[in-house]
Amino acid sequence: MSEVLLQVRVYLEDTDAQGVVYNAGYFRFMERARTEWLRARGIDHRALMERDGLQLVLHAIEMKFTAPARLDDLLCVAAEVREMRGARVTFAQSVRRNDAEGELLCVAQAEVACVDVRGQRPRRLPAALTDGWKE
Amino acid sequence: MSEVLLQVRVYLEDTDAQGVVYNAGYFRFMERARTEWLRARGIDHRALMERDGLQLVLHAIEMKFTAPARLDDLLCVAAEVREMRGARVTFAQSVRRNDAEGELLCVAQAEVACVDVRGQRPRRLPAALTDGWKE
Amino acid sequence: MSEVLLQVRVYLEDTDAQGVVYNAGYFRFMERARTEWLRARGIDHRALMERDGLQLVLHAIEMKFTAPARLDDLLCVAAEVREMRGARVTFAQSVRRNDAEGELLCVAQAEVACVDVRGQRPRRLPAALTDGWKE
Amino acid sequence: MSEVLLQVRVYLEDTDAQGVVYNAGYFRFMERARTEWLRARGIDHRALMERDGLQLVLHAIEMKFTAPARLDDLLCVAAEVREMRGARVTFAQSVRRNDAEGELLCVAQAEVACVDVRGQRPRRLPAALTDGWKE
Repeated sequence: MSEVLLQVRVYLEDTDAQGVVYNAGYFRFMERARTEWLRARGIDHRALMERDGLQLVLHAIEMKFTAPARLDDLLCVAAEVREMRGARVTFAQSVRRNDAEGELLCVAQAEVACVDVRGQRPRRLPAALTDGWKE
Repeated sequence: MSEVLLQVRVYLEDTDAQGVVYNAGYFRFMERARTEWLRARGIDHRALMERDGLQLVLHAIEMKFTAPARLDDLLCVAAEVREMRGARVTFAQSVRRNDAEGELLCVAQAEVACVDVRGQRPRRLPAALTDGWKE
Repeated sequence: MSEVLLQVRVYLEDTDAQGVVYNAGYFRFMERARTEWLRARGIDHRALMERDGLQLVLHAIEMKFTAPARLDDLLCVAAEVREMRGARVTFAQSVRRNDAEGELLCVAQAEVACVDVRGQRPRRLPAALTDGWKE
Repeated sequence: MSEVLLQVRVYLEDTDAQGVVYNAGYFRFMERARTEWLRARGIDHRALMERDGLQLVLHAIEMKFTAPARLDDLLCVAAEVREMRGARVTFAQSVRRNDAEGELLCVAQAEVACVDVRGQRPRRLPAALTDGWKE
């Protein structure tokens, strides 16, 4: 399973005085979807930290905003793995209005690194994440 | 229908360096539940603004924090109307771990006022909200 | 020194689609002011955690919102100690427009508890905080 | 004046359970610096909206995270205009620890578009922003 879709409702907290979702909102929504991808593989951030001493941290992101989301919109946030190699996972991500066929609001490519909690040095991705993945 | 329960997942964005949910998180979660109460009555903030020229704004809140929520927790956020009168709605609210019977993390009483968008003056609550409500 | 004043600028991130500061913003601004009170006494959260194994956590808060702050406003946020006793500090707080004489936007009373990082049990406030304080 | 530097203090609200600044924090800090660039030219978002019917909205951003910021850090956030053309401004941005010579934590390139409030269609940048700018 390399793709996860997450429904997100837009609340007041996500909007700004320009009447639309404040751009950091998409950033947070996309991180939620990556976290759900993790959970779908049986792992969560806390277990990863406490049990394995590992963290997944965002290394780089490119985002393009094509249309604004508004208060009370329902959004469909996607996270699809494009590559896993060594300590890195690359996700293609999108936010659409309503559902997976809806109007495209934002696309992104996010590069995530696996590091050890103590030294923040790169560590191989756990097998639970890479199992079944073929390039 | 005077009570709404909302499931909320704790994401990284909600936590802080003390390892728990940053207190403003509960504040946001409770506002989400009040918004879902609104939606359950067939109204949303945007319709209220654009169609009726009205806003529901928080007038006062009292919060007590009894135990911390942690990353990846699933929370149950409740909003129950305690009183509706004129331009005011008072909600009793709580956040519990996992479900409606779970460990109590936070309780609050929130007083919300209905105001007109332009002048921010108090306005009677719309009938859609008060219909069926008996003191 | 029992009072601290902090200037805060309102950015897009602080506002919502109702055109004003989203209420959790005041919550965050007040926490910033309490942190600056700490810093003014020579301590910060990180030192407190890493050196003393202690955390200051919000136990209860009461907030009243009297007028909205808007995008680009300059705010004056105050934190004044009202009581220190055992593991507790109580702050009277306010947010005013422009400066300490400006229009009152929000008042609050915040009760903060000192706990140990590991067990989250109450611990006496460090002497650096209570020195010179008289009831 | 094509560059602005802004000092930002890291508060609890900016951090996450991984013990560092949550990445959306850099996003918000960079938007604050772009807003200060605007203000340094005598304009703010509210005036732009209310007087000119214009908004500056983020169109695209690329961010690279090179080292984590921590609770209580003081950061230096830079926004430098690299290009202004038609309805677009491109900023090179960075976040460094302590000051403009400090350790590099994050770099970004942000492309901002000027649009009209009503239709969200591209509009020429106001002269107040482009005056004195030479490619």
